[in-house]
Amino acid sequence: MSDAAIGIFDSGIGGLTVMRALVARLPDEEFIYLGDTARLPYGTKSGDTVTRYAVQAAAALTKRKVKMLVVACNTVSAVALPALQEMFAPVPVVGVIVPGAEAAVTAAPKGPIAIIATEGTVKGGAYVRAIEDHGRSIPVIQQACSLFVSIAEEGLLDGGIAEAIARRYLDPLLAAVPKPKALVLGCTHFPALKTTIAKVAGPDIKLVDSAETTAKAVEKILREKNIKRAGGKKPSHTFLATDAPDRFARVGEIFLGQPIDPGSVELVDLQS
Amino acid sequence: MSDAAIGIFDSGIGGLTVMRALVARLPDEEFIYLGDTARLPYGTKSGDTVTRYAVQAAAALTKRKVKMLVVACNTVSAVALPALQEMFAPVPVVGVIVPGAEAAVTAAPKGPIAIIATEGTVKGGAYVRAIEDHGRSIPVIQQACSLFVSIAEEGLLDGGIAEAIARRYLDPLLAAVPKPKALVLGCTHFPALKTTIAKVAGPDIKLVDSAETTAKAVEKILREKNIKRAGGKKPSHTFLATDAPDRFARVGEIFLGQPIDPGSVELVDLQS
Repeated sequence: MSDAAIGIFDSGIGGLTVMRALVARLPDEEFIYLGDTARLPYGTKSGDTVTRYAVQAAAALTKRKVKMLVVACNTVSAVALPALQEMFAPVPVVGVIVPGAEAAVTAAPKGPIAIIATEGTVKGGAYVRAIEDHGRSIPVIQQACSLFVSIAEEGLLDGGIAEAIARRYLDPLLAAVPKPKALVLGCTHFPALKTTIAKVAGPDIKLVDSAETTAKAVEKILREKNIKRAGGKKPSHTFLATDAPDRFARVGEIFLGQPIDPGSVELVDLQS
Repeated sequence: MSDAAIGIFDSGIGGLTVMRALVARLPDEEFIYLGDTARLPYGTKSGDTVTRYAVQAAAALTKRKVKMLVVACNTVSAVALPALQEMFAPVPVVGVIVPGAEAAVTAAPKGPIAIIATEGTVKGGAYVRAIEDHGRSIPVIQQACSLFVSIAEEGLLDGGIAEAIARRYLDPLLAAVPKPKALVLGCTHFPALKTTIAKVAGPDIKLVDSAETTAKAVEKILREKNIKRAGGKKPSHTFLATDAPDRFARVGEIFLGQPIDPGSVELVDLQS
């Protein structure tokens, strides 16, 4: 069981930012990453559709005997986590929303906390609820930033266009009174735009990325269940995509922070 | 048969620009429009996946006894048209590429012709082949403009961001020697950005939109087959979407040019 891989899934390639944090924190673990590139993006789709797609992705990973599931997609974490946890028990299923909310509360204990995310995540209100669950009354404001996904996938990470789009979304948040003290990057694509977002947000706002805290949450569960993989044996990293493995490898490098061999990305079908 | 509806399908809502031209030219016809909003966009997906999705969409429409199929999506027209024509014969299947190429050759008989489209359409090279089929040697240059889809869906049709993105894509085309005489808007989302594209392209380049010429091609087939619907009876327009009918109605208005009642958009499942 300890030797089994950790399954990570996402609507596409953005979740590779979460895998990057996981690999850094848990270098001995094996990972199987599944990106549903044939049906991305999830962020503009309904909760029912996102849940249906997520169940198919999780089933494909549990068939490969993973010891844990990490939902790297904020939208899936926001709308489908309880359903996945119930359906795939006893395999632990970890999302990115609760770790992200915890990091935000740590960064700005009295708030206000600003959340930027996809349309689906914002509508679902999961970050707001997760912050409320801390039992304190912390002001939270949200903003959907749909274009951040497309410019990140296009590799348009900085420069005039990226900044103008960031200003369009962030200016209303920055004008809030009192001014937010923390800004949650509530979509796995957004850390790729961190430099631009930080420039527009200014030095007084802490940027909160759930990848780090999610990796911590995963490590904690591995320890509690005593299923950490022993060191010494070089771990494998497997990539699965539902479409266009070559594009996955090419664009995925932006998010994983290291090259991906196109030949190592396996094409899978979730619908059959 | 004459009373049957014309089926139109697209990856999402962009194809409503084609429906708009069809309704204007053929006001007595009934239309059933299907947008595969659960799996859009197609433009960044592989040919195999796009073909599989297109066959499912066309099958859903032929089940409803349409008399003709209009493929309003450039990406589908570029990669799947022959397969659809063979599979759904004798129902005529009309794509947007050949009418678009004809319009381009009429606008600039000696070229050069510039094509802007999605990644999938550009890679497939269907516009280049369709222009070559006119038997003349007309220079053609292409540019993928993936972000145009996202900014059009966000309703970001003009202003600084839209112009900066347009310059990013068009400047290399405009720098070509000799300068292009016509610019084909090779994606159904792009006509929504026509004002911005025209501003950046300047007055010397004719913008070519395949919606108009596709509507003409459809009218020609109706006439040849003698299956035009008689006037006098108010025709119905039906909308089907595979996800988020409310978003379809809200964003669809930008492309159809008239309001869509959210209650009139029917949710359908293409996978079962």
